[in-house]
Amino acid sequence: MKHKIGFMGLGIMGVPMAANLLKAGYPVMVYNRSPEKGEPLVKRGAGLASHPKAMARAADVIIAMVTGPEALQDLLWGPNGAGGAFNHSKVFINMSSVSPGYTRELARELELSGVTFIDAPVSGTKKPAEDGALVILAAGPQDKVKALEPVFLAMGKKVIYCGAAGQGSMMKMFVNLLLGVMMEGFAEALNLGKLGGLDMDAMLETVFSGAMNSPMFQVKAPLLKENRYPAAFPLKHLAKDCKFVVDTAFELGAPAPVAHTILHLYRAGVAQGWGDEDISAIAKVLEHLNPK
Amino acid sequence: MKHKIGFMGLGIMGVPMAANLLKAGYPVMVYNRSPEKGEPLVKRGAGLASHPKAMARAADVIIAMVTGPEALQDLLWGPNGAGGAFNHSKVFINMSSVSPGYTRELARELELSGVTFIDAPVSGTKKPAEDGALVILAAGPQDKVKALEPVFLAMGKKVIYCGAAGQGSMMKMFVNLLLGVMMEGFAEALNLGKLGGLDMDAMLETVFSGAMNSPMFQVKAPLLKENRYPAAFPLKHLAKDCKFVVDTAFELGAPAPVAHTILHLYRAGVAQGWGDEDISAIAKVLEHLNPK
Amino acid sequence: MKHKIGFMGLGIMGVPMAANLLKAGYPVMVYNRSPEKGEPLVKRGAGLASHPKAMARAADVIIAMVTGPEALQDLLWGPNGAGGAFNHSKVFINMSSVSPGYTRELARELELSGVTFIDAPVSGTKKPAEDGALVILAAGPQDKVKALEPVFLAMGKKVIYCGAAGQGSMMKMFVNLLLGVMMEGFAEALNLGKLGGLDMDAMLETVFSGAMNSPMFQVKAPLLKENRYPAAFPLKHLAKDCKFVVDTAFELGAPAPVAHTILHLYRAGVAQGWGDEDISAIAKVLEHLNPK
Amino acid sequence: MKHKIGFMGLGIMGVPMAANLLKAGYPVMVYNRSPEKGEPLVKRGAGLASHPKAMARAADVIIAMVTGPEALQDLLWGPNGAGGAFNHSKVFINMSSVSPGYTRELARELELSGVTFIDAPVSGTKKPAEDGALVILAAGPQDKVKALEPVFLAMGKKVIYCGAAGQGSMMKMFVNLLLGVMMEGFAEALNLGKLGGLDMDAMLETVFSGAMNSPMFQVKAPLLKENRYPAAFPLKHLAKDCKFVVDTAFELGAPAPVAHTILHLYRAGVAQGWGDEDISAIAKVLEHLNPK
Repeated sequence: MKHKIGFMGLGIMGVPMAANLLKAGYPVMVYNRSPEKGEPLVKRGAGLASHPKAMARAADVIIAMVTGPEALQDLLWGPNGAGGAFNHSKVFINMSSVSPGYTRELARELELSGVTFIDAPVSGTKKPAEDGALVILAAGPQDKVKALEPVFLAMGKKVIYCGAAGQGSMMKMFVNLLLGVMMEGFAEALNLGKLGGLDMDAMLETVFSGAMNSPMFQVKAPLLKENRYPAAFPLKHLAKDCKFVVDTAFELGAPAPVAHTILHLYRAGVAQGWGDEDISAIAKVLEHLNPK
Repeated sequence: MKHKIGFMGLGIMGVPMAANLLKAGYPVMVYNRSPEKGEPLVKRGAGLASHPKAMARAADVIIAMVTGPEALQDLLWGPNGAGGAFNHSKVFINMSSVSPGYTRELARELELSGVTFIDAPVSGTKKPAEDGALVILAAGPQDKVKALEPVFLAMGKKVIYCGAAGQGSMMKMFVNLLLGVMMEGFAEALNLGKLGGLDMDAMLETVFSGAMNSPMFQVKAPLLKENRYPAAFPLKHLAKDCKFVVDTAFELGAPAPVAHTILHLYRAGVAQGWGDEDISAIAKVLEHLNPK
Repeated sequence: MKHKIGFMGLGIMGVPMAANLLKAGYPVMVYNRSPEKGEPLVKRGAGLASHPKAMARAADVIIAMVTGPEALQDLLWGPNGAGGAFNHSKVFINMSSVSPGYTRELARELELSGVTFIDAPVSGTKKPAEDGALVILAAGPQDKVKALEPVFLAMGKKVIYCGAAGQGSMMKMFVNLLLGVMMEGFAEALNLGKLGGLDMDAMLETVFSGAMNSPMFQVKAPLLKENRYPAAFPLKHLAKDCKFVVDTAFELGAPAPVAHTILHLYRAGVAQGWGDEDISAIAKVLEHLNPK
Repeated sequence: MKHKIGFMGLGIMGVPMAANLLKAGYPVMVYNRSPEKGEPLVKRGAGLASHPKAMARAADVIIAMVTGPEALQDLLWGPNGAGGAFNHSKVFINMSSVSPGYTRELARELELSGVTFIDAPVSGTKKPAEDGALVILAAGPQDKVKALEPVFLAMGKKVIYCGAAGQGSMMKMFVNLLLGVMMEGFAEALNLGKLGGLDMDAMLETVFSGAMNSPMFQVKAPLLKENRYPAAFPLKHLAKDCKFVVDTAFELGAPAPVAHTILHLYRAGVAQGWGDEDISAIAKVLEHLNPK
């Protein structure tokens, strides 16, 4: 029998992920602070809960896909929070990007309720979410992760098991650090080349023809060429993830010189008011420092 | 009629490049300071010149693939230097990685001799050099670059035209900045993940399954897994290229915050004695700073 | 009538600060997790409390000088915590270095108890603490700060009023960022000069004769000359302060490029096992990266 | 008998330095590309040469105080260059800030002429130059440096002997790295504090009351308070010096993480068009990145 899914957090990622669960035949009840975001899902058959607790009561697998720890704490432990309905028969899967430290704290908070906690952030942004092609970075009890694979594969193309709860978030730090570095490096190199008189298309052809080619560069190149940055992955979220990376590196004593440099730059992008644009708008931070 | 090629600089890159010219049927005369490096080429039919000038006299297209400006100046203008044999009927192609500033100086030095100067560094390291799959970043008079395409395509799979002499080196700065950033970012993220308890194979699978996948990461992953760094591209050369990037950024006023951070790290790798290992040995610089 | 002081936290700073309060004639009851640290103070007339609550009951002004938020939370809200004895008639002064964010949270936690909360970290390390020459960075209700000036001036030479509670910690971030930058800059410049063949004494004379002279450099120069780093201010504490600076800069969107660079370096010093040495042991981090 | 002095380079520093030589009773002949800069000196008794060679012929001690290697090369080896009049009976003192590498090259160039070469940059900017209170960082043959002490002490308050020619420039790298770091650190900390709601005067009082106090901060504080940056030491010159520091660190393999970070920032200041303002205008680079 199919799991009954409760899904909270209907942003850029949450809507297509919930839609893919519906498509795979799961009964889904959704909750979002602004309920109008749930309408397209309701049209496809989702239920709309009036508060997180009602959603959690109706489901046996509760999924959260929100913007960070504050939103999550609120949905879990605020008035009519989902946490109030958790018990031994339910599974809670956090797919939001948070720090490993926060995830370990959350695991401790959830322990009393008896709920099975799975920490499963994703690699991939808007397009893979729509295509059901996310990579799911799942952590928690390995047998439960295994048992839930059909649920994950409704949203993604692959599940990578990362270890105990907290290690999914750790894997997300790892992969988003790499993302943040590559995005900034791409923008910094293109900006240098432009100031040095190179043609944008020739630069892109050089990258695409060589060992540094990457699907991410293919996707971001048109935005950088046109200086238009509609968000597939908002810059402010990457800034937040870079902060989690730096926090984690500090805890571990891990050397993270470039993580520090790029955190500073993405945060400057948010400060300039570009946080809701795509991560590729980091190019604007560099241009802001260019010769006039 | 096939061009007679003179080829000087028989290192990791030069030997397979000259071998591919021979394979394509070009008559090739080689020169190298340590002549024994030329033996495998002589066995395949190359001539061995006793000094650069003799090589340049015998050829109509002279190619240099050396480690930097010092070596090049010496081969061109030292005793019996190739420059002494340059004239209006000859073409000189510098494929070594040097800075755009130096290339522009070199162009001025060469002007008097009447030689046609083409600035054509490559994107790609040992394996693409062997496979004739380099990307040639060619700059200089566009008609001459066009006319020499068969020569370039004996060594590479593609020629990208970059503009006036100096712009090939500029394109090389661009692409090696991206290479340097990606290599360091890959090593920094993997090192963080390891200290955070993640499994190396799970991290690699995550990268290879997502948008940040790149041929370069595929090639470097085994070296990083095994902590063995035989050089496809020696770290000291990337350190030198990063210095050219920083020099160029200073000239242009281009913001290059991450270029600065990685220059410092690659240079530290050379200082530790790892300059002859592969660029992926940057991982050792980070580990050197890890908690004991 | 003199205030009855309760003093918790008897480390490098706490012991001389409490001693100066005794010297100024204040009755002082001390508490420390390892009670033997209190012995020299008991000999000079201090009372020794068996737990923080007992200390807080006996005092009307309670001072904390501990290593960070964790220690402070424990002493305030742990079993027999001082917080349990707080009420409208008492004043609580936190002189420990913590982040402005934590201080604002603490202010909220303390509100219910009715206690007057003053946030008063200090500028100055071991020697000024012993000499009663600290600079007190006091924040909270201005009239209360004014009224407590005699208490502060028993420990310091000057009180600087910083604003509402939280702003003392903010001022401490400000001044310790400057400290961290100057200390690293001094070590980095001296290390460069040494590798460049300059004489250590000639370098110091140059600094001491010019506009960059500073009491801090005078104090740290002998440690750097002799490569011996007994802690006046332990490196691990400055690493923690730099982390607070970076956290605060992230919150505010303040550009902090050098704060990031030095955080990475001080943290690496802790990772190498040098956290209990003086902040000037940052020189060892740089030397660790030197050519062999 | 007093040396006859030739002085070339009449900028912010050169004019007061030459004026102090006149005041001390030395006969001085000056040269400057824009001769009108020499007028105030001519009024005080200086001779005005029509070209550098004429100046060098008339003098036995030739001093250069120009903006960098390009200007110096031109005055020495350009048409009617001073170098053409150098011989065994003359002394050439370069007091301009240049890199140690360039200074060693210059020493080799000068060797043939037989001139005694002294490398003597200064620590101190406009005000100490006017007051004859510079610190002279002299390098070259120690007996000659000793013999010329009266000349140096006409311009400065102290001579520090640094070693063979090149080591004066090395000492200047050392001291200007420290200057650059302190200036940026001061601006970065003040900017953070301002965004965090601290009062400028309270911050300055905190610095001036503690161990980080420094004459340099005293001098720069009013500029930072008023956001007006008339140049005592132009930002573009410090950017150039930071580049020399990074070049030197690269040569030596010296770790220079903060030197890299600040080079990037000062260069960005020049790119923004603030190169002719004081070094304290680095504050504007940080503010340029602030939240709107």
